[in-house]
Amino acid sequence: MQSLALDTYKIHIGPIAESLAQTLNQQPFSQLFVLVDEHTKKHCWPRIAPVVQQHAPKIIEIASGETHKNLRTCEHIWQQLMAHRAGRDALMLNLGGGVIGDMGGFAASTFKRGMHFIQTPTTLLSQVDASIGGKLGIDFLQVKNSIGLFRNPQAVLVDPEFLDTLPDRELRSGYAEVIKHSLIANARQWKTLLNLTDLRSADWSSIIPASLKIKKEIVEADPFEKGLRKALNFGHTIGHAVEGHALETEAPLLHGEAIAIGMIGETYLSYQQLGLSKEALHQIAAYLLQIYGKPLLEPPHYPAYLHLMGNDKKNEGGKINFSLLSEAGAVSVNQTADASQITAALDFYNAL
Amino acid sequence: MQSLALDTYKIHIGPIAESLAQTLNQQPFSQLFVLVDEHTKKHCWPRIAPVVQQHAPKIIEIASGETHKNLRTCEHIWQQLMAHRAGRDALMLNLGGGVIGDMGGFAASTFKRGMHFIQTPTTLLSQVDASIGGKLGIDFLQVKNSIGLFRNPQAVLVDPEFLDTLPDRELRSGYAEVIKHSLIANARQWKTLLNLTDLRSADWSSIIPASLKIKKEIVEADPFEKGLRKALNFGHTIGHAVEGHALETEAPLLHGEAIAIGMIGETYLSYQQLGLSKEALHQIAAYLLQIYGKPLLEPPHYPAYLHLMGNDKKNEGGKINFSLLSEAGAVSVNQTADASQITAALDFYNAL
Repeated sequence: MQSLALDTYKIHIGPIAESLAQTLNQQPFSQLFVLVDEHTKKHCWPRIAPVVQQHAPKIIEIASGETHKNLRTCEHIWQQLMAHRAGRDALMLNLGGGVIGDMGGFAASTFKRGMHFIQTPTTLLSQVDASIGGKLGIDFLQVKNSIGLFRNPQAVLVDPEFLDTLPDRELRSGYAEVIKHSLIANARQWKTLLNLTDLRSADWSSIIPASLKIKKEIVEADPFEKGLRKALNFGHTIGHAVEGHALETEAPLLHGEAIAIGMIGETYLSYQQLGLSKEALHQIAAYLLQIYGKPLLEPPHYPAYLHLMGNDKKNEGGKINFSLLSEAGAVSVNQTADASQITAALDFYNAL
Repeated sequence: MQSLALDTYKIHIGPIAESLAQTLNQQPFSQLFVLVDEHTKKHCWPRIAPVVQQHAPKIIEIASGETHKNLRTCEHIWQQLMAHRAGRDALMLNLGGGVIGDMGGFAASTFKRGMHFIQTPTTLLSQVDASIGGKLGIDFLQVKNSIGLFRNPQAVLVDPEFLDTLPDRELRSGYAEVIKHSLIANARQWKTLLNLTDLRSADWSSIIPASLKIKKEIVEADPFEKGLRKALNFGHTIGHAVEGHALETEAPLLHGEAIAIGMIGETYLSYQQLGLSKEALHQIAAYLLQIYGKPLLEPPHYPAYLHLMGNDKKNEGGKINFSLLSEAGAVSVNQTADASQITAALDFYNAL
């Protein structure tokens, strides 16, 4: 088992049976709650049930998917905790992807002003991204994560074996954050990833720790997202808007699928505004298209995308904020673009 | 103007025009929001409007009262912030009593994972209690403050002049926390307060700082309510249950009115379990009755009170937790009582 130490907690990467037993032994608690959705209840819960059975865990089940990452689902979680008379000294184990981790962490952190929680991310996306950095929250009025807070879990337990429970599309979605980490901070890893086209054959037990280390360094340097941490937003200004908009359609996109689109658009902005080379632009766009295909962005939706970008948390003083690449492996935060520049980026994507 | 320095912020006690202008100058922000209810909009807002007009403040109005301290009202606040495209760098000024401060602070702290806020408590209760200690939250399923978090404001601005905008009943309600602070930590102040029967003639500009100093010392010694801070819960285990229950009736009690009842009940428990003298018991009960009168606790409601006490945040491991007096001016935390002992305390109150 590998461990990464962060300021107040550790990320353990390895077999969940071992890391979970060890973590529960270190932390006294009055009751154990396990938050699952219908998928993780079926595929992941059986793998940890034997380890936690002695603690008489209470299962709280919610419906899977980003559309349920909202206040109504939070209320359901709080109601269940209240019904079991949970105290502040109870412990919540969030077993699932980013939705479970973000919302379960938010619900736990605000229940009776804060009960403890452990993140057990089961998707690639949450293993390399959502479970590190203490960002918790829910969507509100179509704006992603617009209600939330920063709070660290007691521990994060990453088991790459959980990835075999994922559909291909989910695995691909999570991989977008792996690509992003390499593009903003590690040119060598980016070159390595360029050779990876069959995700099922990937060596996740080496890719995940490498990706986590990039995020850890950035988050530790800027725990409350005052500056440097905005580097992680590469691809996310356009990506979140595309994701939020698609959520309301018949063809919602997974987070990573939207971020892949966002990364292409923002790589184009990087080329236009930060001197990223034409070769890098085309190499990045080509690799992302190879992995993700190309869902079209309908021009009639452009105004809605721009409106959603205007509500992004990262904005200050009314400008739309971007983190852009000067080259593969190097990022600059606090870049801005106006509506016509963003429109050009969306057009570039559509014309590929 | 007097100032009390806490770890990350200051409490300024004095004319609001001065303290507010000074505070706004120290803190850059992109937009200013002022949270009010119909009372503070009418009586308090005109006193600060001239000071903030230059910042083009946006008023967010909510309905007054504890019954509106809930998730629905929070959603209204978040919607308004979203409608004005507030960024994380906006500032919220909470102008009102405990409901405004607790809920406005919670809404601000969770909006886009945390915008800044300033507490401008306008009631005696919030001036001596709710505005210090970083405890924020809303009521959920009839349980007070069961959803919330700890977070400090940028500043707390206390102006005793606001007290002249309060009805007598509100002033009396707030005074319960002043009494509590003296009973748990300062026997000399308790003796002084015993002479005060006409609250309108009180010298608030000396009573408030004295009361705040007691709370400040306790909160600073235990910012996350791990132990010592429970001292402040004297009167609140029974008091919160009585308050929560009355909230659903035709005769809701104000917070301090319920806490006065709770203090009598818990003084009785102190007499029974901690050796508090009979003289002290009767002196405390007599003074509280003199100020607050005696709303009866109907025995048929006892089970509901006990049920609500069972859901209190302060409980751990299923026991009902109390902070009790060994003498006037000295408190012991982590005392427990069972249903029959609590019932006896309620009977004692009713029989006075």
